[in-house]
Amino acid sequence: MQFDIIKTDRNARACLCETSRGVINTPAFMAVGTQGTVKAVSPDELKEMGAEIILCNTYHLYLRPGHEIVSSLGGIHQFMNWDRTILTDSGGFQVFSLSALRKIDENGVHFRSHLDGSLHFIGPEKAMGIQSVLGSDIEMTFDDCTPYPSTYEYALESLKRTTLWAKQCKEYHKKIQDTGYRIQDTTPLNPPLARGELKGGYDASCIVNRESTQDLFGIVQGGMYKDLRKTSIEEIVTIQFDGYAVGGLSVGEPKEVMHEMMYFTAPFLPVDKPRYLMGIGDLKDVLIGVEAGFDMFDCVMPTRNARNGTLFTSRGKISIKREEFKSDRGPLDPQCECYTCKNYSRGYLRHIFLSKEILSMRLNTLHNLHFYFNFFRNMRKSIIEGKFSEFKSKWEVIL
Amino acid sequence: MQFDIIKTDRNARACLCETSRGVINTPAFMAVGTQGTVKAVSPDELKEMGAEIILCNTYHLYLRPGHEIVSSLGGIHQFMNWDRTILTDSGGFQVFSLSALRKIDENGVHFRSHLDGSLHFIGPEKAMGIQSVLGSDIEMTFDDCTPYPSTYEYALESLKRTTLWAKQCKEYHKKIQDTGYRIQDTTPLNPPLARGELKGGYDASCIVNRESTQDLFGIVQGGMYKDLRKTSIEEIVTIQFDGYAVGGLSVGEPKEVMHEMMYFTAPFLPVDKPRYLMGIGDLKDVLIGVEAGFDMFDCVMPTRNARNGTLFTSRGKISIKREEFKSDRGPLDPQCECYTCKNYSRGYLRHIFLSKEILSMRLNTLHNLHFYFNFFRNMRKSIIEGKFSEFKSKWEVIL
Repeated sequence: MQFDIIKTDRNARACLCETSRGVINTPAFMAVGTQGTVKAVSPDELKEMGAEIILCNTYHLYLRPGHEIVSSLGGIHQFMNWDRTILTDSGGFQVFSLSALRKIDENGVHFRSHLDGSLHFIGPEKAMGIQSVLGSDIEMTFDDCTPYPSTYEYALESLKRTTLWAKQCKEYHKKIQDTGYRIQDTTPLNPPLARGELKGGYDASCIVNRESTQDLFGIVQGGMYKDLRKTSIEEIVTIQFDGYAVGGLSVGEPKEVMHEMMYFTAPFLPVDKPRYLMGIGDLKDVLIGVEAGFDMFDCVMPTRNARNGTLFTSRGKISIKREEFKSDRGPLDPQCECYTCKNYSRGYLRHIFLSKEILSMRLNTLHNLHFYFNFFRNMRKSIIEGKFSEFKSKWEVIL
Repeated sequence: MQFDIIKTDRNARACLCETSRGVINTPAFMAVGTQGTVKAVSPDELKEMGAEIILCNTYHLYLRPGHEIVSSLGGIHQFMNWDRTILTDSGGFQVFSLSALRKIDENGVHFRSHLDGSLHFIGPEKAMGIQSVLGSDIEMTFDDCTPYPSTYEYALESLKRTTLWAKQCKEYHKKIQDTGYRIQDTTPLNPPLARGELKGGYDASCIVNRESTQDLFGIVQGGMYKDLRKTSIEEIVTIQFDGYAVGGLSVGEPKEVMHEMMYFTAPFLPVDKPRYLMGIGDLKDVLIGVEAGFDMFDCVMPTRNARNGTLFTSRGKISIKREEFKSDRGPLDPQCECYTCKNYSRGYLRHIFLSKEILSMRLNTLHNLHFYFNFFRNMRKSIIEGKFSEFKSKWEVIL
């Protein structure tokens, strides 16, 4: 991955990442495509809005349809018809937050699927194996996401495990990249497919066999303890990754604590690599993250809020359910240029939301994602122009 | 409405209707936009697929958001962002099929809303009033949809009521068109809006004040009794409408009876007006309807089936749920040129269907509607080329 800092404004950075799938202008927002689709919108719509990278969840795709199935369907990009950059998480966070009966040891985590209760195991080797088989462009190490609150002792233990696993991830990642080594899945196709081998189908012309490298980002833990965060960063940075992520934030801690950790950690991360603040996407927090020096963000907020009828506008959030919008002919946001605002009234959007129409989820999602991408574009511009603090002050009032 | 017969092949007709919103090539399929949106697709997508006319349900829009609200949002076309022709039904069929506690008398039908149990009344005057306020291009008379089975006596009574109401609809329709007369709604805005008057909103530039005429189609009833069908046609045709519809079919009768009624009624309908076979859309039945001499069809089948994972292909229907599609890289239908088939594999479509993703409903609906519109285009071509019977024979095997 090519990484260039275009401009800094105090600690805020406007950078350019380049993967084999294209460029990513940072600060960048990654829309979340949990099960291989960003909910309610099409890849074409994402491109039109300017999305350069999306995130997919390894845990979900591993359980359904299974990474070998995704591979047999041409890999994650062809599978979901998205030819730009894809980052996959390691599955660690979902194993902790979604699955039942998880049991953790030094090798990894045993857990039950939230879908059917079936037993599974993911550790560093398997996390690397799954992600390589999915074929994402940026992989994440398998980490032990420290819960909040945690004792110092537990946070330390979790940090040590995260470092151990990060080392193993690095080794397995190298082995996979160098030799094409493929892990044995617990739910193999019969017979297991060789890497790049394809199964079924008859339209050979549509098969994209793009050669691409897979980058690996390391994840920092340490709970809400500054010295542990610093230790974790030192240990993870020593292993050397293509980018660095701060995990274990936005897990229930007070906002002030979260912000403090953001300001504290960013300066210790290498300047010449992308910095990813995991799971953060409330725009108020993003402003702080960017100010601290982070480059990449992801969150389900714009898409989930859209489906719940909460919409972002240049004057703040609104709920489309409100009675006052009943016969309102105006657009959601008069300053917005999105497809929804150009073509539909608040009155109509209220009607199809209350009528539970599928188009409602789509139009709302288009609007919120457009708002987010626009916000990030303007934020980047403000950094390049040396006006980030003005941008931040302006939006802190509105958000 | 301008109506021209382009070509006939025995009784099958290829015609051209022209409303103030554009042309409609017949035989035409009308996608159903019950609540002001064709479920799971956008108006732009409908246009791209070649939709020239859609149907909206008066009953649903009257109950929610209310026809006066639709009017205040610019009328049905601006409301839903569809500038081509819209046909509205009269509400009669839904009053009978969806609402509770309906009580019928010579003036109309008292019923309870299926949404909130509130009491409502619709009769000929109100049905015309609602449709004129919605602003559709083609309105339907308020009829008494004869159930199946019905005794001869009941079918006769229902026929007489339908004729009486049709006369009243014609009169009210004329009064509304000539004088701008507006019915008093039971749930009026305060104050009631004059016709064309607009409320709320600030983007005056987006208001379309297109002058358009509203055509009125009469509906034939008569149950499954041929002599009553003939009587009904004679009475309805005497009143003179812009087009004629056959209602009360596909209400539970055996297919053979339905087909017999289709073959029986069509020849008695005026040659120089469009003939609409209401609620029929199973393509096997459409072939018979076209052979009998009908021009317009509507049905929720392609859209509803899509959402249930049942997809039309050139080799017959398939269920996308099937295990065998798990790692199938091929498109739904190798002969299909739709967006879904050009971009997605069966394996992916199966995955997002089982994962209950919103994109699944959209991609499936796009495919099924594309299939329908293509079917109708090719059917029309076969009529123009004098090859309809070959077309019919070919498809009867597949469907």
